[in-house]
Amino acid sequence: MATLQDLGVSAFINILGAFVFLLLFAVLRIQPINDRVYFPKLYIAGKRAADHRGARRAINLNLCTYFKFLSWVPGALRMTQTELIHHAGLDSAVYLRIYTLGLKIFLPVMVVALLVLIPVNVSGGTLLNLRKDVMFSDIDKLSISNVSPGSNRFFIHLLMAYVFTFWTCFMLYKEYSNVAFMRLHFLASQKRCADQFTVIVRNIPRVSSHSTSEAVDEFFRRNHPDHYLGQQAVYNANRYAKLVKQKERLQNWLDYYQLKFERHPEKRPTGRTGCFGFCGRQVDQIDYYRARISELDKRIASERQRVLNDPKAVMPVSFVTFDSRWGAAVCAQTQQSKNPTQWLTNWAPEPRDVYWQNLAIPFFSLSIRKFLISIAVFALVFFYMIPIAFVQSLANLEGIERVAPFLRPVIEVKVVKSFLQGFLPGLALKLFLYILPTVLMIMSKVEGYVSLSSLERRTASKYYYFMLVNVFLGSIIAGTAFEQLDSFFHDPPSQIPRTIGVAVPMKATFFMTYIMVDGWAGIANEILRVKPLVIYHLKNMFIVKTERDRERAMDPRSIALGENLPSLQLYFLLGLVYAVVTPILLPFIIVFFAFAYLVYRHQIINVYNQEYESAAAFWPQVHSRIIASLLISHVTLFGLLSTMKAAYSTPLLIFLPLLTLWFHKYCKSRFEPAFRKYPLEEAMEKDVMEHASEPSLNLKTYLANAYLHPIFHMFEQEDQKEEATIEVRIDKSEQQQQQQQHHVRSSHSQYEEETSAQTHYHHEERSSSQYQYQYQHQYQYQHEETHMRSEQSPPHFVYHHGVEH
Amino acid sequence: MATLQDLGVSAFINILGAFVFLLLFAVLRIQPINDRVYFPKLYIAGKRAADHRGARRAINLNLCTYFKFLSWVPGALRMTQTELIHHAGLDSAVYLRIYTLGLKIFLPVMVVALLVLIPVNVSGGTLLNLRKDVMFSDIDKLSISNVSPGSNRFFIHLLMAYVFTFWTCFMLYKEYSNVAFMRLHFLASQKRCADQFTVIVRNIPRVSSHSTSEAVDEFFRRNHPDHYLGQQAVYNANRYAKLVKQKERLQNWLDYYQLKFERHPEKRPTGRTGCFGFCGRQVDQIDYYRARISELDKRIASERQRVLNDPKAVMPVSFVTFDSRWGAAVCAQTQQSKNPTQWLTNWAPEPRDVYWQNLAIPFFSLSIRKFLISIAVFALVFFYMIPIAFVQSLANLEGIERVAPFLRPVIEVKVVKSFLQGFLPGLALKLFLYILPTVLMIMSKVEGYVSLSSLERRTASKYYYFMLVNVFLGSIIAGTAFEQLDSFFHDPPSQIPRTIGVAVPMKATFFMTYIMVDGWAGIANEILRVKPLVIYHLKNMFIVKTERDRERAMDPRSIALGENLPSLQLYFLLGLVYAVVTPILLPFIIVFFAFAYLVYRHQIINVYNQEYESAAAFWPQVHSRIIASLLISHVTLFGLLSTMKAAYSTPLLIFLPLLTLWFHKYCKSRFEPAFRKYPLEEAMEKDVMEHASEPSLNLKTYLANAYLHPIFHMFEQEDQKEEATIEVRIDKSEQQQQQQQHHVRSSHSQYEEETSAQTHYHHEERSSSQYQYQYQHQYQYQHEETHMRSEQSPPHFVYHHGVEH
Repeated sequence: MATLQDLGVSAFINILGAFVFLLLFAVLRIQPINDRVYFPKLYIAGKRAADHRGARRAINLNLCTYFKFLSWVPGALRMTQTELIHHAGLDSAVYLRIYTLGLKIFLPVMVVALLVLIPVNVSGGTLLNLRKDVMFSDIDKLSISNVSPGSNRFFIHLLMAYVFTFWTCFMLYKEYSNVAFMRLHFLASQKRCADQFTVIVRNIPRVSSHSTSEAVDEFFRRNHPDHYLGQQAVYNANRYAKLVKQKERLQNWLDYYQLKFERHPEKRPTGRTGCFGFCGRQVDQIDYYRARISELDKRIASERQRVLNDPKAVMPVSFVTFDSRWGAAVCAQTQQSKNPTQWLTNWAPEPRDVYWQNLAIPFFSLSIRKFLISIAVFALVFFYMIPIAFVQSLANLEGIERVAPFLRPVIEVKVVKSFLQGFLPGLALKLFLYILPTVLMIMSKVEGYVSLSSLERRTASKYYYFMLVNVFLGSIIAGTAFEQLDSFFHDPPSQIPRTIGVAVPMKATFFMTYIMVDGWAGIANEILRVKPLVIYHLKNMFIVKTERDRERAMDPRSIALGENLPSLQLYFLLGLVYAVVTPILLPFIIVFFAFAYLVYRHQIINVYNQEYESAAAFWPQVHSRIIASLLISHVTLFGLLSTMKAAYSTPLLIFLPLLTLWFHKYCKSRFEPAFRKYPLEEAMEKDVMEHASEPSLNLKTYLANAYLHPIFHMFEQEDQKEEATIEVRIDKSEQQQQQQQHHVRSSHSQYEEETSAQTHYHHEERSSSQYQYQYQHQYQYQHEETHMRSEQSPPHFVYHHGVEH
Repeated sequence: MATLQDLGVSAFINILGAFVFLLLFAVLRIQPINDRVYFPKLYIAGKRAADHRGARRAINLNLCTYFKFLSWVPGALRMTQTELIHHAGLDSAVYLRIYTLGLKIFLPVMVVALLVLIPVNVSGGTLLNLRKDVMFSDIDKLSISNVSPGSNRFFIHLLMAYVFTFWTCFMLYKEYSNVAFMRLHFLASQKRCADQFTVIVRNIPRVSSHSTSEAVDEFFRRNHPDHYLGQQAVYNANRYAKLVKQKERLQNWLDYYQLKFERHPEKRPTGRTGCFGFCGRQVDQIDYYRARISELDKRIASERQRVLNDPKAVMPVSFVTFDSRWGAAVCAQTQQSKNPTQWLTNWAPEPRDVYWQNLAIPFFSLSIRKFLISIAVFALVFFYMIPIAFVQSLANLEGIERVAPFLRPVIEVKVVKSFLQGFLPGLALKLFLYILPTVLMIMSKVEGYVSLSSLERRTASKYYYFMLVNVFLGSIIAGTAFEQLDSFFHDPPSQIPRTIGVAVPMKATFFMTYIMVDGWAGIANEILRVKPLVIYHLKNMFIVKTERDRERAMDPRSIALGENLPSLQLYFLLGLVYAVVTPILLPFIIVFFAFAYLVYRHQIINVYNQEYESAAAFWPQVHSRIIASLLISHVTLFGLLSTMKAAYSTPLLIFLPLLTLWFHKYCKSRFEPAFRKYPLEEAMEKDVMEHASEPSLNLKTYLANAYLHPIFHMFEQEDQKEEATIEVRIDKSEQQQQQQQHHVRSSHSQYEEETSAQTHYHHEERSSSQYQYQYQHQYQYQHEETHMRSEQSPPHFVYHHGVEH
């Protein structure tokens, strides 16, 4: 057991670490050169222009600003919740509420626990020993382990368990009610969006005589005659999108070499075509990439023709729109077809939120996919150590020496050897943990969910299981998850809570250190944004040519719900489990929640740019995970007390999980429908209001193409363009060039979708001319007119296009 | 272990018992005096008139008919499924399919198991021993226990487990698909019923300014403007119904004494008023009951006024009707209100199916009720032995002697003593098991379900748990359920399947005997209908005065789904568990299914009268219970094989439960919505068809009062009557008399609801006059006109009123 002093040292180191991170952040954030790393959201939201503080001065020389190293805190706190929702969306605002919920639950719990339980624990033990060293030298003296077995004092712990559970449930109830209200209010006050009128229909049966579109039209015209408006077929453009992405990558390289050539015009860049430039024939890089791009263009064009004309490219999925929210709500919530696996309707996710790739998955395979992935997740959670151990056994020093004998002299150096020996075994594990969220996200994608928000939620729940088994249980019961599983099967069930219960107080110091390392320092690292900082400056150095490129290099990211939710839930678990057992752990959790709240508030205001808005759809998950934590804490306490010979008090604990479960069921029926369904009352209200305020609204044009695959938006604009410039004789080369420009847009489509198609087209024209301006010395085939247009447009206009709206 | 010979004796006894029952049945059923016991359904369906075979001859003297003792079998098989659905409803027809499903699953399984597994098992054991006694003297020789541990023969058992599981799943899939189709077809071909247009709305919020009816009207007019038609408020008439019931009981006694007086006019019946006629003052029974009835009449009248006028008697529940099936389907499947616990809509059960009492339960208490009942069911399943043991400890001979010393001489007689000693301990248990279904039904009622069909389904599932734990597990693992629970907590989980697995083959003979006693003899007892036979004749002797009374004394009952489904599911469980382990048990199951199929087919055609029609809503439960049986059989086999040292083959078994679970999930998504929701496609089709065939249909009048509480139907008729006879001066006494007549109807309301209100009124008039005719010498206060009417109406008309429709 660690003493308080050990813990103090650990705390000191971690606080120092966090302090250094904060200091670094304070210095780096006020450098204008880092402005796009630390304030990307402000750029995107149009609250900071590109030339803010001047792009010329890269370093801040105003010394005053260096002293206020916590000056970001008031700024982060200043925004009200309403402004926050307006600025960053409801998801972000509700995400922050998880932290305040943590504070609301644990602050009173901490006060009561410290005032009541610590004295009870301290005085409960062998008092004589205690008097000898008045300064408690051991965390254990403060924990429940200090109470002598069979003592009646356990009634106090029991009472506290009840009090804490009731308090937690009370706060959970209030918060669920708040969030549900916020969600409904948000949806009600939202301005008109396409997803309110749209339903996604899956597994449309194939009728041989009809095309899919005709079948959809007929079906909904028959069964929703009063409200059906139209439908948007979904094309399987995955291959096309892949080609475009490939071209984009090539274009990046081309840009890179062109920039290189511009800077050193005396030497054309050359390289080898084979693997990573090591083998293959020597080529001129610019010519090579240009040739490959033009070849790809042809393939893209033919693929586009195939997608548009092949009826097989139309997926049995469709976005069906209605003339009212009421009609859409009805269609989304009812069963359409006699065969319940056909014509499956559901609310459409908002266009930004759609994960287009998965729409092409045949519906039948979904249940098989889910089945296989759930087995895979189980294997991953319990057996992930096996492949890692295998890699570790390979990646020892002897193995390396055998594979690469030439490294032997280096390895044999004593310092290097000891470093490697200490470092290598952990490397595989660290790499694995680093890529784990990505792996889980890929698994969720394989499961076939069609919206990004549900993908993130699924990832979060997978990650939670991993953390629960491998971090929480894995730390408490020594041994791998596989060994746990084995003991779970071979020990009597009554033994398991005991094993955990006995180990829990002993592991308190470990978890305190964990909270400091993973929580405090991890959050400080989050605000520093080391990785985006490095990548941004690397990109700035190598590929950024225009301000537009700089905008693309900026990587605001979003709140990684898939990773953050599970780790937050772990902190709730730790807090609830230790509240009764070792209350001294609670202050650490409180500090974490408070600090993380500040940091994430700052990041949400200044950095993150949410890709989609799910209107807090993740809350039911947060709620039920905290309930699960409560249940785990009850089981733990039960196991602990049963080893403490507290025969009178232990049975009284049995009602606590039952009551908690009942509370959960009640909350589920009370609030969850608000997150799954859309009440007709609400829909009707909004319809009536809209009809009164805009009686002449043409919804059909408003909804047209809202749910077109982003790639097809490009098609459309291209077609429009071709029509518009019909008088101008366009030769093949220009068409090619236009297509080239589109890939630039595709990554930006998420911003651009917000502007109407008309504005789009406008921008597109301008940005294309912009490009022509840049490339004019390379592209020989522009004709005069476009060139002139490009010179007329202000070169900076394009950067603002994300800012304008 | 029992030998084959022991089993043979047991089989002989049971077959003999069943044979005797069948013989008795064959004799009793052809006695005209028992006609109403064995063919009530035919009376109700109007296929047999009251004077069929003449009521005069009570005994059948035609000797020929006595010889054909199985003559009922062809009659039972003759009806086709379509006719059966028409005759007895879809519930009954689908219930019979459970038996055919059992035959379809187990016949091929039995053939394969006997051909493949028996030789493997027989030759697998110690062959030398086997040759000594060629006639196998032991069931065990045929079972898996005979295979020597570690043998490779277990691969064959494993293969068979896979084959049987796949076959069962295949049959389950086909049957689910069939039943789902039958249900949809039944609903589609059903003639117009009120429940197709009606939605039950629960938890209507109280608005202070509006009455509940106004609130409902406003809400649905706003949110379903195109389809809302009207609503039927629900009154809390529980107390009123109780009073009416009480009056009915008193009336029964009055009738009894009047009949007694008629037969012995020389002596007016007298008795004491106190407990069971033992104490209290001496009174004239006829006067006494008449006084009490008239007193009750006053209370009923005032209660009726209260219900009608008190706004608090209007429950926050309403039946809302729509102008189309589409509108009702939409409303039933969508969420109405922003607060998801208010305005809860669901399909209305058909009017016959509504359990009116529970509509008055406040919605909030439902979740608490469910919580408490689930704890109670758990306690009942696992701890029911405790109170019984307590009663047993009280009800021993010494206890009786102490309480009632005067019985000592009787008890001390040796024969009586040994009889009581053998009999008393079992009595409490037998009584408990006898009342168990009733107790479970009461528990389900407390849970607050609002339809009889769901009440029966809930009872069935409770009973299933009881049977599973106490019959199946309780027989396999010796000891009470409480001890099982204890060992479940204290043994390692891997030990439990082993314990069960090892015990399963040893208990085969027990279950064979169980099947013979509970299955074969039980079914034969079912067809004999001993209890209804006795009760009918008792009633006939004491209270039946008119043919109408005789009709009421007839007790057709319905298929007791609450008891029958769980016991059927137990047979499926036994069959699946023993298919691989001891295949010789299968023929017993096959015989049970075949015999029970015949008996229930006969009973459904001739006896049972279903109270409601749920369109096979119980099938998902049947399906998932059989899936659960499959899983249990896998676990058992796993445990058995793991003790058999079949280390190679056992792990291969792990995929079987996983695949089964996946199959279950698939079936759930594929078929279950057909049982829970009503597809819009279907609704629209029927609406369109109906609109085309009956364009001038006035739905509003059709639906008016369809969902009025049966008691209020009486009010209405009374009101009509009062209006009709407005010219005739009605004095108080006549009014009183009318009310008296109504209670007669209330028990018949289920038949009478089927006839239209107009016919009703007609009948009511006639039946009332009939009563006046009967009672004219007692009732002094009729005036001439009613009397004359009563003499004009044919006295026998009333008996036919159930037959007419």
